[in-house]
Amino acid sequence: MSDDEKYMTMALEEARKALSKDEIPVGCIIVAEGRVVGRGYNLTETLQDVTAHAEIQAITAAAQTLGGKYLQGCTLYVTLEPCVMCAGAIGWAQVSRLVYGATDEKRGYTGFAPKALHPKCKVEKGILEDRCRLLLQEFFQNKRKP
Amino acid sequence: MSDDEKYMTMALEEARKALSKDEIPVGCIIVAEGRVVGRGYNLTETLQDVTAHAEIQAITAAAQTLGGKYLQGCTLYVTLEPCVMCAGAIGWAQVSRLVYGATDEKRGYTGFAPKALHPKCKVEKGILEDRCRLLLQEFFQNKRKP
Repeated sequence: MSDDEKYMTMALEEARKALSKDEIPVGCIIVAEGRVVGRGYNLTETLQDVTAHAEIQAITAAAQTLGGKYLQGCTLYVTLEPCVMCAGAIGWAQVSRLVYGATDEKRGYTGFAPKALHPKCKVEKGILEDRCRLLLQEFFQNKRKP
Repeated sequence: MSDDEKYMTMALEEARKALSKDEIPVGCIIVAEGRVVGRGYNLTETLQDVTAHAEIQAITAAAQTLGGKYLQGCTLYVTLEPCVMCAGAIGWAQVSRLVYGATDEKRGYTGFAPKALHPKCKVEKGILEDRCRLLLQEFFQNKRKP
């Protein structure tokens, strides 16, 4: 298992925490020099707050851990392609590398604001894509059951 | 003074709170049926958190006040054109109307993600534009002094 797969597995564990609270299962991990400095999972329903996406919480947590608001040198792992809001936050934080699992064709930033990230941010997608997507599908299929 | 000017004046008061903390002076007010339900001002330096923009805090506050995460029927007043992150949050919250003062040519959402807002959101810009812009200019001019 590669490092990217290892950290995406941890992001999936965060996503499972969201699932256990009946939230859309998205999880995020931020890593700096091999150390996890921030975590988060979607809590928009629990907190009744649209800004409580996994990435926003992980960015706030990582800034606290590192003692500064810029996350240069950090890699952000998230199970689903970030939305415009989160891509904007990832851009402001100057995250150096973004790795995501499943693509979000409806709300993903690439369809709305492809330049939202910092110009130096490297992007990799599709890491553990199937597992990330299946977790989301599981959630939505259960929602549709009578 | 129109209602829009009245509420933008309140947003400017929020921006002045940011200025007093040596933060880039941006302030935000959310109004529902003539009642202020959320306020916020930029605290990114104080909190060392890139997500601590005025709008994000006001959206979180308004959701708490109203007991729900959707801000349909609300008008969001902000002294500066929202960035991509904040426009994404305004979109998720389904804010019905966005009113902003100064245009942000470098980082404003209209240059990056013009479709980030909810499709039904009505936008008005330029309310008390001069006062909003002058407050920002005052901050940056003071920063440049030796």
